[in-house]
This record gives sequence, C-alpha cells and structure tokens, in this order.
Amino acid sequence: MMELLSSTKSFGGWLKRYRHESLSVRGEMTFAIYLPPQAETQKVPVLYWLSGLTCTDENFTQKAGAFRKAAELGLAIVCPDTSPRGTDYPEEHESYDFGSGAGFYINATVAPYSNTYHMYDYVVQELPHLVETHFPVTDKRSISGHSMGGHGALICSLKNPGKYQSVSAFSPIVNPTQCPWGEKAFSGYLGEDRAGWKEWDATCLIEQAEERLPLLIDQGEADNFLEEQLKPEALEAACEKAGHPITLRRQPGYDHSYFFIASFIDEHLEFHSKALS
Amino acid sequence: MMELLSSTKSFGGWLKRYRHESLSVRGEMTFAIYLPPQAETQKVPVLYWLSGLTCTDENFTQKAGAFRKAAELGLAIVCPDTSPRGTDYPEEHESYDFGSGAGFYINATVAPYSNTYHMYDYVVQELPHLVETHFPVTDKRSISGHSMGGHGALICSLKNPGKYQSVSAFSPIVNPTQCPWGEKAFSGYLGEDRAGWKEWDATCLIEQAEERLPLLIDQGEADNFLEEQLKPEALEAACEKAGHPITLRRQPGYDHSYFFIASFIDEHLEFHSKALS
Repeated sequence: MMELLSSTKSFGGWLKRYRHESLSVRGEMTFAIYLPPQAETQKVPVLYWLSGLTCTDENFTQKAGAFRKAAELGLAIVCPDTSPRGTDYPEEHESYDFGSGAGFYINATVAPYSNTYHMYDYVVQELPHLVETHFPVTDKRSISGHSMGGHGALICSLKNPGKYQSVSAFSPIVNPTQCPWGEKAFSGYLGEDRAGWKEWDATCLIEQAEERLPLLIDQGEADNFLEEQLKPEALEAACEKAGHPITLRRQPGYDHSYFFIASFIDEHLEFHSKALS
Repeated sequence: MMELLSSTKSFGGWLKRYRHESLSVRGEMTFAIYLPPQAETQKVPVLYWLSGLTCTDENFTQKAGAFRKAAELGLAIVCPDTSPRGTDYPEEHESYDFGSGAGFYINATVAPYSNTYHMYDYVVQELPHLVETHFPVTDKRSISGHSMGGHGALICSLKNPGKYQSVSAFSPIVNPTQCPWGEKAFSGYLGEDRAGWKEWDATCLIEQAEERLPLLIDQGEADNFLEEQLKPEALEAACEKAGHPITLRRQPGYDHSYFFIASFIDEHLEFHSKALS
C-alpha cells in the first residue's frame, strides 16, 4: 500500500512522493519518483539516485536540476530516503554521520540497528520491485549517487552483476573501511570485526567483481572532504590493478555541494540513458 | 564594505554570497550573484531576481536550475533577500506574509517599518549601484521574480522607464491592492489610506506607464493561490485597456513551486538575454 504525498508537474512530467510500509526496514519509508512525459504513453527506464549524509528524498529533486534532461531523454529517476526513520535507538539522532540520515546503504548486523537498518536490501530489492510493479517503467535500471550515496551506488552495482545497466557517482566514499565516516558507520552497524566490512567497500569489491561495468566518477578538486574521506585514488588504483574500467574526472574548483552535481548531472544522465537504451 | 560569505563554482562560473551594510534599509543585507564564465574576460549584463514570501537569496540559487542557461548566455544573476533582517518590530516575525521575508519591494511609510523597510530603494537603486561598482557587469539590467517578487519586478520596471531592458514574472501578485496578501502588507507598511497604495500596484501603474516594455508572465493553472491572490486577468485587462504589450502564458498542471519556475526559467533567461544584447 502506497500513499501519494504530493504530485508536482515539472518539465512536462510529474514528480511524485510516496510513503509506504517497507518490509526490508520494518517501517515506513518515503521516496520520490520523477516520471518524464514519455511515461504517459510508454514504459521508461529508471535511474536510482542515492543521496548523501543528512539528505532525504528531496535534496536531489530540489537541487540537482536533473528533470530537464530526464524529460528530454525519457528517463525516470527514483530517489529513496537515506535511512529508516521513526525509531529512536541510542546514538541514532545525535550525529549527522551515523543513524538517521546516514544508513550507508548496507544491512546492519549489530542490534538494535540490525532490526531495521537494511538500506541495502531496500534499495537493491524492495524498491525496484515496488517501482516496477506500480509505475510505467521497464526493468532496465541504472544507479548513481553522491558521497555516501556514491558509495551506495558503487557497492549496489558491484555486488549485483546484471542488475544495473550502468553506474556513476559524484564525490563517492570509495573506500569506507579506510576513512573516518566509513569506520564510524561500519563499527556501529557491523561491529568491530573489520573482516566483514570489506563486502561493503567498493575498493575492496573491485578485485572480485564478476561484471566489468565501467565506472563514471566526477570529483570536485575543491571538495573539503576529498583528502580525509573520499580518496578516489584508492578506487582508481584498485581498478588499475584489477583491469576494471573507470573514468575518474577531477573537476577543478568544484566543491562537495549540489551546485557541483547540477553542473555535471546532464552528462551522467546521458551516460546512463545510452546504457539503458 | 562587502563581506564574501561563500564562493561556489557552478557551470564554470561562480556563485558568490555577500553581506554588506545597506544605507537603504539601515542594516546588514545579504545577496547572491552568479557570475557566468564569460565574466572572467568581459563585462556581462545582469538579471535581477526577486523572490517570493518566506524566501532568502538562496531559494532561487538552489532550486531554479538557472545557472546552466545563464552560463551559456553569459548572463549574471543577482538575488537579493526579501526583507531587511535583524530588527524585532511588533508583528515582524509572526506571520509568513508580513514583516521578515515579506518586504514586498516597497518603501514603508508607517513606523516602525518606515525606519528600515525600504526594499524598493534597495533593489532599484542601492543594489544595482553596488553590483555595477564591484563586479564585471555592464549597466544593462533586466528584472524578474516570483509571486511577491513577480509583483516587485513589475512595479520596479513600470516605475523606472529606461532602467531595465526587459521584465518578466512567474505567478506574480499583479494587483496587490485587491488581494489579501497585498491588503495585509500595504496596510502594515503604508497605512490605511488606500489612495497611496496604487503607486505600488502593477495593475494600477499600467495605465500611466511611460514605457511600453513588453511583459512576459508565466502562470501555473494548478497554482493554489491563483484565484484568491494572483488574479493575472486583472493585469491582462489593464494591459488591454492601456494598449500595453503583455504575453501571459497559462501553463496547465503547474503549481506555485520552484519546480514550475525551473521548467520555464530557460525561456525567461533567453527572453532577457535577447533584450540585453
């Protein structure tokens, strides 16, 4: 059962927000879907967009300026929330980089987060099933995201050969087992045994990737988080070692904000649309 | 003296936010300016954007998706705040449609607002002077805005023949002397003598307009405020009576949000760019 929260016309298509009861996270989730004008007469492919720390489904829809190009290309865009909501676990709402707004697109194994923080299952399985059941979309999917969501897009793609036609990321956390954001989140969600962390780390997953889907990554060189948290050179080195195709574009002067995403989102949408057609 | 608050690269240009001491409003004001890439080597013309109720300088910059086209056209965009800040008058912060965030781009005559609420002087005189003194811009100006800011754009243009090359508006309050938003604001800022209100009402100003600058207006037909507050037909009738050129486009399905603005902002920027070149 899905509840329509709002329906807003944009570039001839419709942005719709829904609330629904999620089995994966055992509670209510909210997501947004942009349906381009083409969806009124035919099925369209879907790009999943995973947002970063502190975001909801609304940051991308309001700030990325993506719907002009999506309407032109005939591409639906689905934006989930960044964590389960509605619980009140210890530490859950105390910092911006753990708990609510910071689900990291993994399945938690440490209680109490293991009860509900199953964002990986949600974005990889439940949400596509829901979307493909209820909307005029094909079963062709691509995935992208920003920062924590860039990490999410990379691991969802690397762990699910055949599931996505293409993957890209803006300013992704490429190696969460080796940076403060990832170490904090993985400790809290997965416990202190670091061996198990590797299956949620794009740089660790590259070596055994069964599918050589080319990675498109844009990274601003004036990004405040570049050196301590993002470290794209780690993924670049792993790709080189494994012979995994990657296009890492370092964009001079750009920061970590949605003004950066907006500047290059059209190129990502064109990249995905080409793979989806 | 201007203080740079932030500088963010977007579409090859720079979005800069400044705080400065304003003579018009006798206090600090914040504004944003987007400088397109062309401004690094030549002077560029300026579009002034006036925002609606509750907004700051940031709503347009974050949600309108305007910088892609501005960068293409070589157009600077200046976004002022919507009221003075930092005072604490009776009723000033109690409602969304009066006082802070709701300056209505007029000069208040009723105390205490008459001390500082001089948004008309600020956007028509002080801000262009500041911008043209400190940035690589020409003295060619256009003006646009949304809702309360659409009213602002229309009156600034109608009251200042020769000052702007072109004017447009999204969902403007075209006849504030005849709608609840305008009646509340004008009562509070100008007092109960309605005769004086007319000089701040676009529909009233059309008749004696010295310059026949064509008006471009987009209005969503699914706008919740259309019938009670916006009433574009009043302006349309006044233009017809006065022989004033107007293009009023009623856009089916669109609401009052920035998703509507984003859908048509490119066409407005092209309209202004043509007039400015």
